Amino acid sequence: MSAPSRLDRVRALLARAELDAVVVSRTAGKRWLSGFVLAHGEEATSGWSGTLLVTAERQVVMADARYTEQAAHECPGWEVRRTRGLIHEGLPDVAAELGVRRVGAEARVLSYADWAALAERGLDLVPLDEELEALRLVKDAEEIGAIQRACALTDRCFEHLLGTVRPGMTERDVAWEMTTWFRGNGAEALAFDPLVLVGARAAMPHGKPSDAAVSAGLALLLDFGSQVDGYRSDMTRTVFFGEPDAETRRRYEAVREAQQRAFDAVTVGIAGTEVDATARRHLDSAGLGEAFTHGLGHGIGLETHEEPRLLTWERPLEAGMVFTLEPGVYLPGQIGIRIEDTVVLEASGARRLTHAPRELLVL
Amino acid sequence: MSAPSRLDRVRALLARAELDAVVVSRTAGKRWLSGFVLAHGEEATSGWSGTLLVTAERQVVMADARYTEQAAHECPGWEVRRTRGLIHEGLPDVAAELGVRRVGAEARVLSYADWAALAERGLDLVPLDEELEALRLVKDAEEIGAIQRACALTDRCFEHLLGTVRPGMTERDVAWEMTTWFRGNGAEALAFDPLVLVGARAAMPHGKPSDAAVSAGLALLLDFGSQVDGYRSDMTRTVFFGEPDAETRRRYEAVREAQQRAFDAVTVGIAGTEVDATARRHLDSAGLGEAFTHGLGHGIGLETHEEPRLLTWERPLEAGMVFTLEPGVYLPGQIGIRIEDTVVLEASGARRLTHAPRELLVL
Repeated sequence: MSAPSRLDRVRALLARAELDAVVVSRTAGKRWLSGFVLAHGEEATSGWSGTLLVTAERQVVMADARYTEQAAHECPGWEVRRTRGLIHEGLPDVAAELGVRRVGAEARVLSYADWAALAERGLDLVPLDEELEALRLVKDAEEIGAIQRACALTDRCFEHLLGTVRPGMTERDVAWEMTTWFRGNGAEALAFDPLVLVGARAAMPHGKPSDAAVSAGLALLLDFGSQVDGYRSDMTRTVFFGEPDAETRRRYEAVREAQQRAFDAVTVGIAGTEVDATARRHLDSAGLGEAFTHGLGHGIGLETHEEPRLLTWERPLEAGMVFTLEPGVYLPGQIGIRIEDTVVLEASGARRLTHAPRELLVL
Repeated sequence: MSAPSRLDRVRALLARAELDAVVVSRTAGKRWLSGFVLAHGEEATSGWSGTLLVTAERQVVMADARYTEQAAHECPGWEVRRTRGLIHEGLPDVAAELGVRRVGAEARVLSYADWAALAERGLDLVPLDEELEALRLVKDAEEIGAIQRACALTDRCFEHLLGTVRPGMTERDVAWEMTTWFRGNGAEALAFDPLVLVGARAAMPHGKPSDAAVSAGLALLLDFGSQVDGYRSDMTRTVFFGEPDAETRRRYEAVREAQQRAFDAVTVGIAGTEVDATARRHLDSAGLGEAFTHGLGHGIGLETHEEPRLLTWERPLEAGMVFTLEPGVYLPGQIGIRIEDTVVLEASGARRLTHAPRELLVL
């Protein structure tokens, strides 16, 4: 059981920042610390339920009437408080009862309206986003195991797709093929709505599956992942239906080499920004630097996108961090090419958790 | 085309509140006003993309590099600005260029961190949540048409389930049956993760599908909906496998009658709170008031849950509003019963958009 030590780590923040309590509002943080799970889509409407209040001696999960029984099931060792209304209506009463005034909270998660209303009710709020997210940065063996299972399913799904996807299938058909395959093979969900993009549509790095059909002569970009025990995987491959021309091949190899160089650069202690720069330098040298329009990769765990975001992570990477390496080039009206793996950093360097072939595949 | 008149309605807010501009950050509002669509799950990580800035003369959609091409496709008539980083990094530059200082914004959507950072960059922010959400309260004919199509699919899916669900199927199996049926019959998505709850598990009003199996002698609660052109439906039915006992029947009839009384009470001009109280009075009189632990219903449209929330909506209901009526009783360890329809308010009163049978069904 890792739960007690997680609570201890939150409590260490109390002392360090001279806080009476910490409030955890981020969906992933609530699950990580207490076990409380909000389903997809519930974050938006019921985000307040499952909010955690941790003092030096007590741990309380707050929930409205719809979630109290669920909280009792999912959060052993936590007091469950039924609260009414929104966070600014429920939290101050519990805080007052526990003698709590100075509270660490997530300024990037709580709305301005909630924050202002809590302050008006007498709470002295201290932003604590980075400190709380930092607790989830380094994954333990159990977490890495779950991510690894999600990645293994993603590899197998890709293999299944190689044998299934045919010209004439639409992007939506392929996305549905992924969905049914994951469902039938043990994933609890997809990690995110998959990106399935044909030809020039892949120049939209986040386009949605449409009725555009896979077709001879066009590339197909697949960016997808699964979820196992709450933990996510994320992988992208770009495959070709029919032989690509020499320039396309050159671009593909530039992306592949950029990813490999980034992978080789990953070591314990290197800055995330330096890994990002390694990939970027290679694409620059291939004349594709301008076409690489996003960061090299992002942390992944209970959230699909979390820290460390390599483009801006100036601190040393640590063993146990799990993140993606996903250089891409996007040429509007022409093509998009991305190659992405989920990797874990170990003492000896990066280890890929997704293993699907990275060489150019012609189907 | 209703888009120009929507823009005009936003511009009317500018004058009324003496604002230089309005910023729209809520996913549903962005789609409603400009056509910009974020896929499920993208709200959390890319929420800033698609943010709209409307001045008296210009309308700008801001997006990071991953979304600029999509924005150009989806938002005809809008200027697309590629911005880097988060809202507090991108918005101030565009605002400065347009001579904008006093800006209406959504205090319930923007995080405290974003709001504070924008204020620090010199923007004078004015909370404008209710005014913006109010623009989407009354649906036009096109919107009601989309909701009606989503409701019709939900009715047909329920009929399909009545012929398909058998003892031995798990909650997850039933949820998957819904998912595949909607996919094969024209829904673009489910409106939300469906609730499929067997027996005492239905006492958790928002429990998640598990491996619990449908079984003779147990009730089955189904709360689900579909999405068509972005618009949602929401319906709940509670059915029985084997004859329920007299007390269960009595409770079921109390819920059904409470819903019917609320439905009959709905007229143009009545307060939402009065409709809620009508259902609550009936359940009180049946000794079940304490077991009705949530509000009677909520508005529905581009969001599954929006205004008017009947429990707290003290203003008159208006023709063209679409909302749910969903009384329920929850007896922990025993049973949960809920009956929910999506209804539209017309000049002559409420009209149900979901039509599945409400009488007690024994399968």
